[in-house]
Amino acid sequence: MIGDGEAETGPLATSWHSNKFLNPVRDGAVLPILHLNGYKIAGPTVLSRISREELEQLFRGYGYTPYFVEGSDPEDMHQLMAATFDKVFAEIRQIQQDARENGFHSRPRWPMIVLRTPKGWTCPPEVDGNQVEDSWRSHQVPMGKMAENPAHVQLLESWMRSYKPDELFDDTGRLRSQIADLAPKGDRRMGANPHANGGTLLQDLRMPDFREFAVDVSRPGSVTAEATRVQGQFISECMKLNLDAKNFRVFSPDETASNRWNAVFDVTDRCSTAQILPTDDHVSPDGRVMEMLSEHQCQGWLEGYLLTGRHGFFSCYEAFIHIVDSMFNQHAKWLKVCRHIPWRRPIASLNYLLTSHVWRQDHNGFSHQDPGFIDHIVNKKAEIIRVYLPPDANTLLSVTDHCLRSRNYVNVIVAGKQPSPQWLTMDAAVKHCSAGLGIWDWASNDQGGEPDVVMACCGDVPTLETLAAVELLREHVPDLKIRVINVVNLMKLQPQSEHPHGLSDKDFDLLFTTDKPIIFAFHGYPWLIHRLTYRRTNHRNLHVRGYKEEGTTTTSFDMVVLNELDRFHLAGDVVDRAQTIGSEGAYIKQALRDKLIEHKHYIETHGEDMPEIQDWKWKG
Amino acid sequence: MIGDGEAETGPLATSWHSNKFLNPVRDGAVLPILHLNGYKIAGPTVLSRISREELEQLFRGYGYTPYFVEGSDPEDMHQLMAATFDKVFAEIRQIQQDARENGFHSRPRWPMIVLRTPKGWTCPPEVDGNQVEDSWRSHQVPMGKMAENPAHVQLLESWMRSYKPDELFDDTGRLRSQIADLAPKGDRRMGANPHANGGTLLQDLRMPDFREFAVDVSRPGSVTAEATRVQGQFISECMKLNLDAKNFRVFSPDETASNRWNAVFDVTDRCSTAQILPTDDHVSPDGRVMEMLSEHQCQGWLEGYLLTGRHGFFSCYEAFIHIVDSMFNQHAKWLKVCRHIPWRRPIASLNYLLTSHVWRQDHNGFSHQDPGFIDHIVNKKAEIIRVYLPPDANTLLSVTDHCLRSRNYVNVIVAGKQPSPQWLTMDAAVKHCSAGLGIWDWASNDQGGEPDVVMACCGDVPTLETLAAVELLREHVPDLKIRVINVVNLMKLQPQSEHPHGLSDKDFDLLFTTDKPIIFAFHGYPWLIHRLTYRRTNHRNLHVRGYKEEGTTTTSFDMVVLNELDRFHLAGDVVDRAQTIGSEGAYIKQALRDKLIEHKHYIETHGEDMPEIQDWKWKG
Repeated sequence: MIGDGEAETGPLATSWHSNKFLNPVRDGAVLPILHLNGYKIAGPTVLSRISREELEQLFRGYGYTPYFVEGSDPEDMHQLMAATFDKVFAEIRQIQQDARENGFHSRPRWPMIVLRTPKGWTCPPEVDGNQVEDSWRSHQVPMGKMAENPAHVQLLESWMRSYKPDELFDDTGRLRSQIADLAPKGDRRMGANPHANGGTLLQDLRMPDFREFAVDVSRPGSVTAEATRVQGQFISECMKLNLDAKNFRVFSPDETASNRWNAVFDVTDRCSTAQILPTDDHVSPDGRVMEMLSEHQCQGWLEGYLLTGRHGFFSCYEAFIHIVDSMFNQHAKWLKVCRHIPWRRPIASLNYLLTSHVWRQDHNGFSHQDPGFIDHIVNKKAEIIRVYLPPDANTLLSVTDHCLRSRNYVNVIVAGKQPSPQWLTMDAAVKHCSAGLGIWDWASNDQGGEPDVVMACCGDVPTLETLAAVELLREHVPDLKIRVINVVNLMKLQPQSEHPHGLSDKDFDLLFTTDKPIIFAFHGYPWLIHRLTYRRTNHRNLHVRGYKEEGTTTTSFDMVVLNELDRFHLAGDVVDRAQTIGSEGAYIKQALRDKLIEHKHYIETHGEDMPEIQDWKWKG
Repeated sequence: MIGDGEAETGPLATSWHSNKFLNPVRDGAVLPILHLNGYKIAGPTVLSRISREELEQLFRGYGYTPYFVEGSDPEDMHQLMAATFDKVFAEIRQIQQDARENGFHSRPRWPMIVLRTPKGWTCPPEVDGNQVEDSWRSHQVPMGKMAENPAHVQLLESWMRSYKPDELFDDTGRLRSQIADLAPKGDRRMGANPHANGGTLLQDLRMPDFREFAVDVSRPGSVTAEATRVQGQFISECMKLNLDAKNFRVFSPDETASNRWNAVFDVTDRCSTAQILPTDDHVSPDGRVMEMLSEHQCQGWLEGYLLTGRHGFFSCYEAFIHIVDSMFNQHAKWLKVCRHIPWRRPIASLNYLLTSHVWRQDHNGFSHQDPGFIDHIVNKKAEIIRVYLPPDANTLLSVTDHCLRSRNYVNVIVAGKQPSPQWLTMDAAVKHCSAGLGIWDWASNDQGGEPDVVMACCGDVPTLETLAAVELLREHVPDLKIRVINVVNLMKLQPQSEHPHGLSDKDFDLLFTTDKPIIFAFHGYPWLIHRLTYRRTNHRNLHVRGYKEEGTTTTSFDMVVLNELDRFHLAGDVVDRAQTIGSEGAYIKQALRDKLIEHKHYIETHGEDMPEIQDWKWKG
């Protein structure tokens, strides 16, 4: 049922095209009923004020056969509606029977209904001399101030009596059994339909062992891989193992391949029941990859899929996931409320992969840079929000496995798709992800003593720059004791009182010290880290670098330079703050500054990053 | 020009209906050209894979006459396009001439063009044996790795030569004059069109004196008013004074009346060129109130209106402004970049009124509660972001006047529409808004000494609860020295180094002290205040209350209770933290707790708030 008000919204206006993705052989049917009652809160609706001819053309153009049910006499309208239902149900069954007997041949023209009735149908025609029925005035409170206005009370009583309660209820006020018996029983009741409590239908995914997809990392930084491509191989195997169960789909605004999940196309296709051409790449009516260039549509499809007991994954360019901020809000609020309703069974988590992220928009520039979806989602209840920033492919695999097995959460994973150094073996990755954050001892040199500085990092690019800064510092101040901490699970930073994943204050103090400078390189807006940690003992010594809306189409290293998240700035931050560095600091800072000038000059001349940046490898 | 990829997005799908708001008597014309080239990044587009018949019906249904320009031979296509332009320009002129001579009679059927050409038109048909022209492979980089592949270089050269550069350029590489002379001159050049640099066309609004709309406040809290209704009277007068200039419109998803701007309808109407019925309330083809139930559409219209040199105001339910998060991002990025391009003239600011806010969703509940748009916008560059939370009608008037006069900002105003106590005279309001925040001395009792506690508030409901808490404390601990600070301009809280409006650290320390507890009652999510103030001296003593996703359909006071922002919790927070309160604190806390229990019991029994809450007035 679609009100003519909500029909004006953008997400709804494009969602009519969903019929190009519906396969009558296998999928269910959707019978949209557009309810035109003419008004929103106070103004007329667009679709109620165009001609019948245009309305019919619009829905034919959207690919439907519209049936019109129009009128205001309740008796007539009930008969008309019933007759129309008979007709369209028969049509739907005919479409399904044909497709199921003869296979899919071409997109059917599904029926839909346009129901036109007065707004406030059967309410008092007039109140205080103003038209109410069939007018915007019936929108909320057709008559108010009952306590002060006995005429209104009388009007209300005669209105209520017009529904003939004496015929409906017996003397004790109970609904008469001849009416109550008309209602369906058990699961046929609308409120007890298992598809409206999807958790009752939910089956676990059959999952391969994610360790089998591991990148072989003989020592940290020795090999390069594209994290999301590796993840795509794991997702592909998940898809394959659940093809029979038909309960797993992936969703994306045409970015499945761009986001490096190409392996998925080895086992399934993009879904389309519209025309398919020989030049198309992996498109079929049976495909389980749902692509439409509407993040709204992807989100809406996925929400519906999860709420009816299935599993899914939404991969999206990081900057454009903000398009669904408002839809995410409602899903998060739904999850929060459902957790406290005992008969609602848990559903699969809503999983996002945010990739093509802020730091690697080498061709697209400023319009494609926004890491703020994390800021948006952490405003919702901690009990349902999870945020992961795995620094390499093996950690991404571990996190992905965890998210696909989880229930009732919104999981946000941020990971890059570009070739990047790999840090952890699979075993180390599993341990690191289970802890959520930890010291990388192979990159630290404070073993057996107090560190002079803590260098923390969260996100793949910040991790790379932090490690490169550590090596710079090793060269310049070999005695400096550096502790490197990597954060995968962002929520670990919050106090335990704020988030169930939060580190205890004692553990946090042990890791981050109570008095040493912390240089924190973060994937997103820097103040998010402050927001999560302002209650921690050592917060006053926390210095965060992140994205601050600088840079556009440029080299990938220049992007981090412009936002002062690069190795030279990070090393400089350490020199500024580490108390054990004395007057030699001036020379180091000058050397770091010179490197930045050299960088600028080089990219202006060559249009690409300096070889020492491009070819940098962790020496260890 | 609309690509068939972007045509799949929701906001675009509904925007076709803009023709129901376009008046040929006075407005310009829009000629949409839908460009079907068949593919997005990797997959087919929806609109390129439906039949010609459906496509034609779709656009007829949207209210256009579609003209098809289809083919792949460049010569033929140029002729066809030129002939089609001649036809549709004549049609547009005919529509305009008729309307301008005979007046508006009914919505015209505007022309639009469907242009169907191959993707990658005129690029190499094949690369490495794969089809490129007329295929998804031409989307980004049709052939790569030039340095390693001489065959690709050769292919590139012959491709470039196919455009016959010898005929286009002379021996020095300059464009031949017989071609260069074809381009238009001066303002007729597309890049120099004044409508593409709207600031050159911008005229100041004629503004009434906002003081004339002031609410008469004889003493703080003595009168009640609906802030946005008062603002609406001011907006209405602005509308009236600029009717001749035709450069001011207001935008809303059908909430202009609900948000209490009814006075606007005394001078203009809702705009519609679709069918209008006698029951409609202030709807006409000349109306300057743009209402469509699509926040996307309102935002898009307003952006276009501002960018072409006009003024506007967008009023929206607070929770649903998140729908345009992503569109706001792009406008903010545009403004940031334009500030540093000298020939781009400043445009009018994008003004939002966010009302029907989180604290007063008495009927709508949890789905309508989200104060997080502020969190979203403060991630963008400080130089263009302004956020105001005026506590009453007179401060709202002052802020509104300021925003309408400003340039190149995004101004967000959060204000309630419910009857609320009024605090400041117009003179005091102007001073308070100019400062952005300040001590309310009439509510404070620390004059001539140090306060024991600072009670800060930001937003209308938190201000009310703070003042009620102050009175409770006066009763229980009359000797306690309380300083009350109200914040209108949220950005004052940030350090000067972070935002141009930021208070200096010295001023901040003077106001908020360096060592006394601060109880901060905030309209939005509490951690935003921490994010803005974590660098301030006294941050460690800052305790913030705000919305934490609790509560749903309930009484308005219960909403603040559920989020612990109510007077009793605030007073309790003071008792917990003020060092001058000794063992008597236990008795006070118990009395406060008992009140909360009383409240719960009362609302369960009566369905409305206790009389002492409903009728509370500041005694002073």
